[in-house]
Amino acid sequence: MDHNTTAAHVFDAAIALAGQGDAALLGHPHPAYGNMVGPFGGVIAATLLNAVMQHPARLGEPVSQTVHFAAPVAADGFTVQARVMRTNRSTQHWHVELVQDGGVAAFATAVTALRRDTWSALDAAFPAVPPAAGIAPAPPIARAAWTSRYEMRFIDGAPGAPDSHSDSSQSRMWIRDTPERPLDYLSLAALCDAFYPRIFVRRPKWVPIGTVALTTFFHADAAQLAAQGSAPLLGVARAQRFGNGFFDQDAHMWSERGELLATSHQVVYFKE
Amino acid sequence: MDHNTTAAHVFDAAIALAGQGDAALLGHPHPAYGNMVGPFGGVIAATLLNAVMQHPARLGEPVSQTVHFAAPVAADGFTVQARVMRTNRSTQHWHVELVQDGGVAAFATAVTALRRDTWSALDAAFPAVPPAAGIAPAPPIARAAWTSRYEMRFIDGAPGAPDSHSDSSQSRMWIRDTPERPLDYLSLAALCDAFYPRIFVRRPKWVPIGTVALTTFFHADAAQLAAQGSAPLLGVARAQRFGNGFFDQDAHMWSERGELLATSHQVVYFKE
Repeated sequence: MDHNTTAAHVFDAAIALAGQGDAALLGHPHPAYGNMVGPFGGVIAATLLNAVMQHPARLGEPVSQTVHFAAPVAADGFTVQARVMRTNRSTQHWHVELVQDGGVAAFATAVTALRRDTWSALDAAFPAVPPAAGIAPAPPIARAAWTSRYEMRFIDGAPGAPDSHSDSSQSRMWIRDTPERPLDYLSLAALCDAFYPRIFVRRPKWVPIGTVALTTFFHADAAQLAAQGSAPLLGVARAQRFGNGFFDQDAHMWSERGELLATSHQVVYFKE
Repeated sequence: MDHNTTAAHVFDAAIALAGQGDAALLGHPHPAYGNMVGPFGGVIAATLLNAVMQHPARLGEPVSQTVHFAAPVAADGFTVQARVMRTNRSTQHWHVELVQDGGVAAFATAVTALRRDTWSALDAAFPAVPPAAGIAPAPPIARAAWTSRYEMRFIDGAPGAPDSHSDSSQSRMWIRDTPERPLDYLSLAALCDAFYPRIFVRRPKWVPIGTVALTTFFHADAAQLAAQGSAPLLGVARAQRFGNGFFDQDAHMWSERGELLATSHQVVYFKE
């Protein structure tokens, strides 16, 4: 794989899978999305979803995805195999495995569906926040290459900010791909994981952490994604509970116009 | 299977799996937990988790579970096969399939882990509500047998209540098994699905619905479960967004003492 190609966005290069049909596809971690240990989990999630998107038997668009980060993904190549578990009239259920060195390093389940025009309503409240343009992007973290691939403009809860270690684990930020890239389900899947671990917002102490499992619900339809283009998303993340070596972390992803594009929930291991 | 046994709680009879070792186990829907179409989804979730609990290679206790309701489960018997996807030092990843009539009707993934004593903190706010004892249990719904298997004392958001069709899809209720049964991970998995679909709280119109996928994070450790016993749990459920034939639904499950025992997130199909 040519990591220096300029024909495709670096995100598309990072989630690329070679091969076709319903066979196992070949992928490779991309150094531009490296994390402290292994690749950024959001790109693994998007890579697994990409196997579903490329599958010739796919019905409809993503509605939900659950990713299990079972083991560190090494810098070597891997295979990704998507399997249809059940196809109904308008919904389809998936299982996807990422295998490296003979073991399952990550796996996912997903639902795709044909979206139909129905009654709609929003229950969550769109936060009143200042617009992205007036907030300076946060500097990336050198040890985590992937942070250079997102423009993050924090409204509150930035890691290391004086107010960040408090009774609240909440962060709010405007975020988009760097360089800019029109939003699709694949980049939305990755964006849902682009929040610093809530324990570092709540507690000023560095400990080893790792996401164990991540579930994302895709609320946006194709028209909302197209209207979003490469505009910033408002991301709101918070934890509910920390204890016994695990915490949960929720993320809400909003358009500037107050559309809820995705909600995401993950459980994260922490050392102490 | 003897559905009239009095030796075990009816919930245990409903989630029972015959067989042992790492082979496929045999189960059967129990009429006491029937829903309008097929069994109550919470009992399917608990049945799938039960296959993990019974597996001889299991490491630790449940931390998360995602269930896909892929097709209606018929009244016939089914097989449930749990498979270890990866075992790490303190965490283990699972895939479980429920097969009926040659097709996958439901499947799940799960994480089990050895819980350790670590720093802990609560970020979610325990709601100020009146105690369970002062609220009359709601009558069960005749067409959904499973509703007779739970004592539900609604604080607000009861289906059909005059205030239930509003701008909020939130319901709060005290809930426990009927007859009383000490809480464990299996009954907690089922309780997380024991909320009426949010669309019926928000909108006074009956339409066909069905949970597509359900993710539950188990925050409680063994000591908290033991301390809970058969006391009522405070359940808080709400939706974030309805549209294009799907909505999401969150549930928070609290002890009377303000411990967050589980959080749960599901995506639900609705017809129109």
